[in-house]
Parts: sequence; structure tokens; C-alpha cells
Amino acid sequence: MSELFDRHRETLERAVEAAHSRGYWTPYPEMPSGKIYGESAKADGEAAFQALLNAPFDLDQPTTGGRVGKEESPYGFALGTTYPAVDPSALVAAAKAAGKAWGAASVETRVGICMEILDRINKQSFLMANAVMHTSGQSFMMAFQAGGPHAQDRGLEALAYAYDEMRRVPGAARWEKPQGKNPPAVLDKTFKIVPRGVALVIGCATFPNWNSYSAYFADLATGNSVVVKPHPMAILPLALTVKITRQVLAEQGFDPNVATLAADEPDAPITQALVTHPDIAIIDFTGSRAFGEWIRTNSDGKQVFTEEAGVNSVVALSTDSFKGMCGNIAFSLSLYCGQMCTAPQNIFVPREGIQTDDGHKSVDEVAAGIAAALDKLLGDPDRAMGILGAVQNPDTLARIEAARALGKVVHDSAPVTGGSVPEGARTATPLLVQLDAADEAAYLEERFGPIAFVIATDGADDAIQRAAGAAKTKGAITASIYSTDTGELEAAEAAFADAGAPLSVNLTGQILVNQSAAFSDYHVSGANPAGTACLTDAAFVANRFRVATVRRQAA
Amino acid sequence: MSELFDRHRETLERAVEAAHSRGYWTPYPEMPSGKIYGESAKADGEAAFQALLNAPFDLDQPTTGGRVGKEESPYGFALGTTYPAVDPSALVAAAKAAGKAWGAASVETRVGICMEILDRINKQSFLMANAVMHTSGQSFMMAFQAGGPHAQDRGLEALAYAYDEMRRVPGAARWEKPQGKNPPAVLDKTFKIVPRGVALVIGCATFPNWNSYSAYFADLATGNSVVVKPHPMAILPLALTVKITRQVLAEQGFDPNVATLAADEPDAPITQALVTHPDIAIIDFTGSRAFGEWIRTNSDGKQVFTEEAGVNSVVALSTDSFKGMCGNIAFSLSLYCGQMCTAPQNIFVPREGIQTDDGHKSVDEVAAGIAAALDKLLGDPDRAMGILGAVQNPDTLARIEAARALGKVVHDSAPVTGGSVPEGARTATPLLVQLDAADEAAYLEERFGPIAFVIATDGADDAIQRAAGAAKTKGAITASIYSTDTGELEAAEAAFADAGAPLSVNLTGQILVNQSAAFSDYHVSGANPAGTACLTDAAFVANRFRVATVRRQAA
Repeated sequence: MSELFDRHRETLERAVEAAHSRGYWTPYPEMPSGKIYGESAKADGEAAFQALLNAPFDLDQPTTGGRVGKEESPYGFALGTTYPAVDPSALVAAAKAAGKAWGAASVETRVGICMEILDRINKQSFLMANAVMHTSGQSFMMAFQAGGPHAQDRGLEALAYAYDEMRRVPGAARWEKPQGKNPPAVLDKTFKIVPRGVALVIGCATFPNWNSYSAYFADLATGNSVVVKPHPMAILPLALTVKITRQVLAEQGFDPNVATLAADEPDAPITQALVTHPDIAIIDFTGSRAFGEWIRTNSDGKQVFTEEAGVNSVVALSTDSFKGMCGNIAFSLSLYCGQMCTAPQNIFVPREGIQTDDGHKSVDEVAAGIAAALDKLLGDPDRAMGILGAVQNPDTLARIEAARALGKVVHDSAPVTGGSVPEGARTATPLLVQLDAADEAAYLEERFGPIAFVIATDGADDAIQRAAGAAKTKGAITASIYSTDTGELEAAEAAFADAGAPLSVNLTGQILVNQSAAFSDYHVSGANPAGTACLTDAAFVANRFRVATVRRQAA
Repeated sequence: MSELFDRHRETLERAVEAAHSRGYWTPYPEMPSGKIYGESAKADGEAAFQALLNAPFDLDQPTTGGRVGKEESPYGFALGTTYPAVDPSALVAAAKAAGKAWGAASVETRVGICMEILDRINKQSFLMANAVMHTSGQSFMMAFQAGGPHAQDRGLEALAYAYDEMRRVPGAARWEKPQGKNPPAVLDKTFKIVPRGVALVIGCATFPNWNSYSAYFADLATGNSVVVKPHPMAILPLALTVKITRQVLAEQGFDPNVATLAADEPDAPITQALVTHPDIAIIDFTGSRAFGEWIRTNSDGKQVFTEEAGVNSVVALSTDSFKGMCGNIAFSLSLYCGQMCTAPQNIFVPREGIQTDDGHKSVDEVAAGIAAALDKLLGDPDRAMGILGAVQNPDTLARIEAARALGKVVHDSAPVTGGSVPEGARTATPLLVQLDAADEAAYLEERFGPIAFVIATDGADDAIQRAAGAAKTKGAITASIYSTDTGELEAAEAAFADAGAPLSVNLTGQILVNQSAAFSDYHVSGANPAGTACLTDAAFVANRFRVATVRRQAA
């Protein structure tokens, strides 16, 4: 057993237990509180972040000697941080060489080291919050949580699954087959977990850590070395992750090239060279449908896990809290400007209107109710910025502009001004457009960002079937329904189960459909085009390693 | 809980335990004994088989109304059995429709039914033995074991893995997140196992049951309906399997089209139409590299599990039982005429010869020792037939003829004559050809059948590296080494672990490298080109189902 494994064992066992029982649990506090993280943690994190700006990032790994880095904060400034440029083949070769000893280490040694890495990352959560905020555009609070403790939860969850699968393979067994009156046939067998080889984790710009940590820690735990290819606009959070990883690896006597960073710039991408490299055995990707498809068709024989695009829906059929429903939907549309993979886009409402505790509401009135809730939620600029954050990619503003022409605008998108909104911050409130079910070209594609549609359907069943159909054919990571009718809810449960979209029912309070909890929710189903894999189950980890057997004839 | 689940629960739990501890265990006796299977079982099985010849096979399933079937016994007669011809699209549509209720049934209901099916199949082991013998060409004893109890073990093993994975998903959970001084946020969640859809199992001619049952029962247990596409020359064993399955399904109130047979003839194959059908979600294939590659490149987005070709090796470096080594290798080459996916082809021997308990042996002497052991083993025609069985495919005889020209023939292949060898039986003893390591074109491809090579290498390390290299680049399902040197064994263990081939060490007794034991050996590693998946681990089952979630805001 390893010392680090022993140190973190209790946390690991609790994580395994939580993943089985799937209730709420986390060892990483989500509140950015000085009482928890240390009174100077906030200031220290801020200072550490400032020190990284306009400077070469210190990462002693294989490099061509050049530097790359063109990150820009959505809050209006260039980071100016540069990273070691890499030659993809040289990097993979170094990862492969480093992987030999790593793959030969015991499961406990590797898992213990991964637990220690997560613990060290946790202690840097304030620095990480600044790095995530100024790459993704998330508000500080969200960046702290989603880039810090919640991402760490994802990593720990993957470790728990990997450990749980690996420990089911016994190290040795005696196989003793009776042979009637003759002595039994006896074989002594040993079984050893062996890695696949070199893994590639391709990050995204909106959730650089949260969407990468599951794969990153699953790969490391199962003995693979990992090349991290961050999105060129969100390198810093993963550079910090790799740096901490390399420090722990080196302290424990392993070649730090078990984890390396493959940074690049938008006009000189290196991802394809990595994906097609023959020594890359596992690929995890979060990003667009188009590039996901390219990876899937250019990775013959490799293990590929993707989270791609989707069209998430809300089905509004009836409610006993019209105010709660409109407020909840408005919050879901606003949170991080609709840039979450879990954010809804399409709100289906029967064209005859719906029954509510506030009387019958026409489609127009439902749309107006959500629009009013948006105005109320986002009326104060500082509060608005805390919810919306900034827009990660300028292309999103162009998409908002194009979407205005798709139908009747019931809530226009606007920049957030006044208060303490930083100059140069790229901001936008949600655009809400009213459509008819016939306008499929408008709503049956993902329009990433703060763009949503209220869509009139031919009754409740049509609303359910269109929403589930969109999930099935276009992909969806979440779905939400409002109904007081048991039959409608049962029909929706069946339709969304078939479509592979987890269904949230009658959310009128603080909990949003957007939220996916570690250890509890099965994030991405792997059962529709939004992704080829669930990030939180046995199938996500079980094929990242294989078993090597030796059978000896017993003496 | 289901009545069938309760009835078979103890056996299932023992199977789960056996798959964890990986010692010897089976509930299905492998001896074709009247004391176990009933005094009349042998005669009844034979009579039942005879009644199936030259007759339409009674299988009430979707059909075009036509009949197909061109099976010929390798023992020299046409079966004359015909099966319902199918339209692939209509068959898949029927499977899909039947799958709705099956996929909605509880895990226990499905697993209980699968256990009952296996139990019924077990009781038909004598009939099955005749069906397997007269399609694959296996000897009666091998057909009884590999087509009967050992195949049933494979099915039970897959059921155990599937059950073990599925029961780790809780049916429900309460997620209760503390909110400081406010009441906790509470969600009630339900989780339901949902199938992928319609699965396709493509059988092979040599082990129609043994190589299909893992996938067949894994698919059924996880809620998928299954279309079974047998090899056109080995339909009957799987037709019997599907028939028994449909009987149990119907008795239990399910649409029997959950399991259907897609029989065809060699000159009018329907496999490609099934593989590319959009409603097929899972494909399991056992067969050639060429067709495996076609499936892998024409199945975008489907779950594909294959067992393809490989080049298995023996590395002979030294031994303390030269006689035991030669006898063991000779048996491995002879068993079912080398038509096992686990049979060795290449025997690497250092060109300076090897140390043995019988003194130093040159490469020539090692080859001669194996040749002599072959002659001894196969000297009596009836005993020879019990080991060799018959040659399944006439093409194998042509391959033997071609292989004679590749080098120095040290043991020629010959038909088995005399004794009670049936007239018209297609028989062949092993061909053993001596080569040099430089003759890579001769030995670095799979030459399926009773064809083996003794290959002189530049010392021990060269022998290990060539054998492991062949496994890594060409695929291998087994590997075997003889050495009394600990350092050599350690080097071989590392090399074959890297190459993904399980290594058997110093087998000089009854146990053969060919044998792969259910619940214990990880059959096919999934880590080299011999197959994309291991048949006996969590990864084989975990992706055949997904999890559907419903989250309700607690009242």
C-alpha cells in the first residue's frame, strides 16, 4: 500500500459509497470562504493569478523551445500568459516513455497519487477560480465552484469508479478443477491491470476543468499517461492542473511526463495531429458536433468518449406555481449566459395555453411571464453579472443577432451596463424568441449562448414528442417538464428515457435543470447524439485498462 | 422479484462470486454422463438430432415464407435442415417492437428468464452436442463440452457481469444538499436501466455457441432484443438456442421476437444488411479480420465487440520435461485440428537449441520431438478422431497444401483413415513446417487450421520479442512459454502483458494453452488486433445499457 493511498483512503471509500448510493456528498467545500480555505486565500489566489499574467507560465516539460498563448479574458483584457510550444510527436513519445513505470505501479500507488493531486488542486481553488473566470467568462462565484470544488468532485468521482472497477480484478487466483479420481488440474494465475497507453484529453473553453477532470483522473488512475490539449482560449486552468500533477508525480519518484500540456493558438491548432497519432489510445473530447464527428471518424481502434452539442428542452404543460416556473426557467436561461451544456434552449408550450395557479395562460402570456422574470432577475447590473458572467466567444454575439430574425422577439438580448461591470466585458442578457412548432429549422439546431425559444405546439403530447424527438435526433443533456398531470409525466418519463435525456420535473425553486451533481446524476447519457459516453458510470472507466494474465502450472 | 429469479438466484450469486474470485466453478457438468443428464439423454439427443435432419426447422418467427439452409456436416453428409428465410428490415422491426416491453421489465425479471433459458439449454446438451458436432466438425466429446456446458458457462458468466453492473445502479435516491441556515435543497431521483435497442450477434462456424453466448445473454439481460445471425454453415446450434429462448419468453408473457434467428446461405448473405441497419445498436462478431474490419468501419456510433484473427505463439527456451513439453504442444496443435482461436501456430526456438532434462536439443530435435509426439498422440485412428474432430471448412485443406511449400516439412498432414472414421469425413492431422525467423511472410499471418511452424530465432530474447511482436501487431488470444529461467519468464510476462496476450507458463501436463476457463480467464484481452473487447469483464457489459434519470423537486 502507498502512503498517499492510506492518507486519502477514507475519502476514496466514501466517494465509492456515494457513487453507489447517489445521494449528496462532497469532500470539497463549494463556498469560497476564508473560514474554510484560509483567511488570506482569496487575496493570495488573486495575487497568484495576477503574477501569471503577461509572463511565461513555468512548466518544465518537453517543448520546441517556442512559446504559445493568445488567451483573452471575456472581461476585457489579454492574459498575456505563454506556455511551452510542443511538437506533438515528441510530446507523445515522452508521455509513452513516462507511462512505462506509471503503468507498472500498483493501483493503490496511482490512486493515492491522484487523490493527493486533487487535494493540492483543492487548496488552489481561489487561484483556479480566477483562471477559470478569465478564460471561460464565468462569474467569480461560478468559476470558483465549477472550476474548483465541483470539478474536483468530477475528478474524485472518476477515481472512485476506476478504483472500484480495478479492485474487482483479483491479483491472483488458484484455479483447481476436479478430475474425478485423479488429482485436480491446478493453475496458479496472476492478473495485472495494464493501461491502454497514452491518453488525450481535449478540453473546452467554457468548462475547462469540470469537463476534463473525469477523463483526466480516470486515465491517470488506470495507468495511462495523459496529454492535455486545452482549448486555445482556456489554457490556464489546465496548465495549473498539469503543473500540480507533475509536482506530485516528481515528488513520488515518477517521470512527470505522465501528464503534459499541449497548448496551442487558434490559428495553429495541433489537435488533429494528436488525435491521429498512432500511440494515442484513448481520446476524451468536449466540444462541437463537427469536430466530434471528425474525431469519431479519424480514430479507428481508439477508445473515444465525447460530449458534443445538444438541444435541451423544457416542456411547459401546467403548473401549480406559475411564478416559480417562470422564475426557474429565467434563471436556467441566464446562468452563465446559456453557455452550459445543460442549459435549455427550447420551451415547448401547447398553443391552447396552460393551466396554472394563476389562471389559464396563453402561449404569449407564458412567454411574457418568462420575459418578466428575466427582467426581474437581471434588473440590477451587479446581480446580473453574478448570474450571467461574460460571453466566452465573440461568435456568440453574432449568433444572438442572427437569432433575432427567427421569430417574434419577446425578450431582447442586451449588454449589461452600469454598476461595477468592467469596461470591455463581453455581456449579453438572454434573447427569447417566440416560434411555432413548424419552425423546425429555427429551433432544431443548437444555438449556443443566451438564445431560447418559446414554441407553440399542438397540445401536450406534441410538446413532449417534439422535445424528446429533438433529444433523440439532435442530442440533449437535460430535459425539464412542468405538469400537474400524472399521465403526462409518465408519458414524458418514457419518451425522455427512450431519448436518453435525464428529466427534471416541476422545478420551481432554487434547483435548476442546468445543475448536474457529482456522485448522483449520470451526466450525459451516452444514449443520444449529445455524447458517446456517460461521464459518471462504470462504462466510462472499465475500458481504459485491460487485464494481463499469467497462468502457471502448479508444481 | 420474479419467480424465475428467485429460483435461480443462488446459482447467479455464486456465478458473480466466481467471476470475482476467478477460481474454478461451474454449475453445468461437463461430462456427457447418463448419471447426470439422465440415462436416456444420449439416445434422446441423438434421436432428436436425427429428427431435425432433412426437415424444416420449426421456428415460428417473422419470415418471408421462404426457407434457407445449406449446412453440411464435416463428417460427410448434408444436414438438409431448413430455416425460415427473413427480410432483415422486417426482422429488425419485429425485434424493436418486441424490445419495448422487454426493455421495460425489471432487471430481476430479465435475468431470471435468462437463467431459466440457460437451464433449459443445459438439459438439451446432448442434442446440442450433435448439432455442434455436425456443423463445426468437433468431436462428440468436444462438441458436448464446448457447445454445451462450457458455452452455458459463458452465457452465465455474461449474465453475472451484467447483473453485477446493473444492480450497482440504485433504483432511487434522495439527494439532499445542505444550504447553510436555509432548508436543504432536496431532489428525489429515480434511475432506470434502459437498453440500447436491437443487438446483433454474428456467430462463427467453429464455435457457434461458445463464441456467441457471452454476447447473447449480455444483450438479453441488459434489455436489448437480439437478432442472431449464425454462420451459414453452423445454424442449427443457434437455431436451437433461439427456439428455447422464444419458448421461455412466450411462457413468461413476452413477445418471443425479443430473440430471432437470421439464417442465410453462403451465396446470399444478409449480414451486411443487418450490420448497417440504423436500428441495430450493438454488434458482436466472431470471425475473420477482413469482415471484422468491414464491420468496424461501417458501424458508426454502434457498440461493436469483435473477436477476429490472431497469431498465437509458443516460446520454447528450456524445460525440465522435454517429453511433457513436446506432448503438450502436440496436443495443443491437434485439438480440433488447430481450429480453435486459442490454438498456437508459431513455435519459436533459439537457433542454438535449448537445455532440457533430456540434454541439449537442437531446433531440429525440438521439431522432431513435437513431430514424434504428434505421431504418438494420433497413431490410433479412433483416438485421433476424438482429438482432431473434422475440418470445418474445405478451404482449410487448401491452406494446408499451400503451407507445405513454405519450408521444411517436419510433420506432414494426412487424412485419418481406418478404425471407425466415417466415410466422407474431412480429416487432417497437423502440418509442422520448420522456418527461420527471417521467413516473416510465412508465419506472420494467421494460417487457420492444423498448420504450425517451428521457427529458429537469434536467442531467447529474440524469440520472446518476435512472439510478443506478432501478438501486438497481428493479434493473439493466447501465448505460451517454456523456460526454467526466472529472468526470461519475467521478460516474457512484461512483453506479453504489453502485447495483450495472456501467457501460460511451462504447461507440460493435461492443461493446454488452448483452454480458456469461464469465470477465471479473461478471454480475449481487447488489447491487440485479435479482438476489440474482452468477453469476460465489466467493459463487455457496462455499455450495453444506459441509465434513464428522473429528478423531482421534493414536496
